[in-house]
Amino acid sequence: MSAMPATNRRIVLASRPPATPDPGNFRLEEAPVPTAAPGEVLLRTLWLSLDPYMRGRMSDAPSYSPPVGIGEVMTGGTVSEVVQSHAEGFSPGDLVMGSTGWQEYATAKPSALRHVPRGPAPPSTALGVLGMPGMTAYCGMLNIGQPKPGETVVVAAASGPVGSLVGQIAKLHGARAVGIAGGPDKCAFVRDLGFDACLDHRAPDLADQLADACPKGIDVYFENVGGKVWDAVLPRLNPFARVPVCGLIANYNLGAAPPGPDRTAALMRAVLTKRLLLRGFIVWDFAAQQDDFLQTVGTWVAEGKVRYREDVVEGLEAAPAAFIGMLSGANFGKLVVRVAA
Amino acid sequence: MSAMPATNRRIVLASRPPATPDPGNFRLEEAPVPTAAPGEVLLRTLWLSLDPYMRGRMSDAPSYSPPVGIGEVMTGGTVSEVVQSHAEGFSPGDLVMGSTGWQEYATAKPSALRHVPRGPAPPSTALGVLGMPGMTAYCGMLNIGQPKPGETVVVAAASGPVGSLVGQIAKLHGARAVGIAGGPDKCAFVRDLGFDACLDHRAPDLADQLADACPKGIDVYFENVGGKVWDAVLPRLNPFARVPVCGLIANYNLGAAPPGPDRTAALMRAVLTKRLLLRGFIVWDFAAQQDDFLQTVGTWVAEGKVRYREDVVEGLEAAPAAFIGMLSGANFGKLVVRVAA
Repeated sequence: MSAMPATNRRIVLASRPPATPDPGNFRLEEAPVPTAAPGEVLLRTLWLSLDPYMRGRMSDAPSYSPPVGIGEVMTGGTVSEVVQSHAEGFSPGDLVMGSTGWQEYATAKPSALRHVPRGPAPPSTALGVLGMPGMTAYCGMLNIGQPKPGETVVVAAASGPVGSLVGQIAKLHGARAVGIAGGPDKCAFVRDLGFDACLDHRAPDLADQLADACPKGIDVYFENVGGKVWDAVLPRLNPFARVPVCGLIANYNLGAAPPGPDRTAALMRAVLTKRLLLRGFIVWDFAAQQDDFLQTVGTWVAEGKVRYREDVVEGLEAAPAAFIGMLSGANFGKLVVRVAA
Repeated sequence: MSAMPATNRRIVLASRPPATPDPGNFRLEEAPVPTAAPGEVLLRTLWLSLDPYMRGRMSDAPSYSPPVGIGEVMTGGTVSEVVQSHAEGFSPGDLVMGSTGWQEYATAKPSALRHVPRGPAPPSTALGVLGMPGMTAYCGMLNIGQPKPGETVVVAAASGPVGSLVGQIAKLHGARAVGIAGGPDKCAFVRDLGFDACLDHRAPDLADQLADACPKGIDVYFENVGGKVWDAVLPRLNPFARVPVCGLIANYNLGAAPPGPDRTAALMRAVLTKRLLLRGFIVWDFAAQQDDFLQTVGTWVAEGKVRYREDVVEGLEAAPAAFIGMLSGANFGKLVVRVAA
């Protein structure tokens, strides 16, 4: 707990990026610390999560959530400490998970917060393996991917918070897990997590390597990147393969549609002839499963059956560069910003 | 029943079409009538079904079924009369449904046959509303489309055997049904079936008409044509829309991929942001539901709750031209060939 502060530093969206964001799309501002109204709490941000979905919020193209407005604080999940409470059930010093954005202080209503236990897992895991990314992996695999013993599951960004859990869940279900990641260090980490193989997406012969790593084809492709990984995966999908689609990070910075030929018809033909299931989802479509997720994955983490890695960046002002780097894979593990100690 | 014949006329695949089939891809042959081995029956074809999936069998591109070999009899569903039986449970004069292809006589094992009752519905319906096309509509809607009251269902080839039942099932479930068909006569027929609207796919402003006909967007698009109808539908799909994919007739005759831009990324983005469900299927994926289908739709037909239309072509020799015409929408209703009276 800290003394009552005077100034709230925050990062707002300065302009919309036409393609890859640059630092000029963000602006660091100072503002007064907000006042908690009756029924609200005042929060001090300890940890800010940086996630690929935020690229979508910077754009005003239609999506599942409205965009961040120009001049508005960038959206983002946070773990915070309660500084002042006018709400029942919350006391100064409590740790809470919320979505208070890229700023040092915020007010919030209890309905938008969840208590983070001071347990064996560090509080920052509420933004990763025990938070939105972990629940994305868990719900996407259980509801859509449905891996069966002996099947092959492929996931990209496999050293990241979603992909690393997808592969570990595949293994816990008796399936073969093949990861794709950027560079030898990440691939070594992914193999160390228990994946059967991990391929470097930078390899010029990625498609051939994927064929070798999946001799019985691919039954589940957990789609979180798009782009050339999808191109390599599609021909290897088995009949009745399932494709949960929760992200397309490689496509987010595309401006106009890429040149032809137009492969839409080929994709639909594959859907038909292989009887594929493609299903887009966001984690909150499965909000009713949150308790089950926290219980199950929390136990796996506590028992060491699931491991995770965090990439910690120091200070709110470092968030824009870290976020931009993440979009090209510069992070190694769940990217979180330590906003306050 | 007829006297024992001497000659079997049959149509074989003469060559593979690179794009749109032409009559030279087929050859009418004469061969001896085959002999039924012990345990088999000899069948005389009464009705031959012509269906879009046969275009796939003419190609040796990978698909869910092996292609017809060059010189082999074209595959196809049939309703036949038992001429001679060496199999228990089958007597001369029985009507059976099978897949004995484009020929006048064939032998078959009982396991490949289903008795067709001499009931209120004509035997040819075993190839249409009470056969593979009807079951495609029924199983695709019940398992994947899952229309709910007040939702909007769109289907193309709406005067055909699959599309006409899709829309009628939508109505029976309390949903709004919008058909797409080729020309004013077909559209009038579709509206007469009870669809709320039917659009002519030849209209230059199809996309605008579709928007007007679906003011609350589209919740189920039963995909059986592909091409420009899909292009018009995709932007109108609502969040959580379901797309059963059972055919892509507009794409079947595509040679190479069409020119760009490549809209694959845009399609995947729509899957993600709208949380779409795309699922390819063929009717036999739901083989276990055949009894339920026959019972339910048989009752609907008997009670007049479901209507259907057949387009009857006379004589085996007319099959190639009728099939080629069907691929461009020349038929009006379920296309069947009366091979024998």
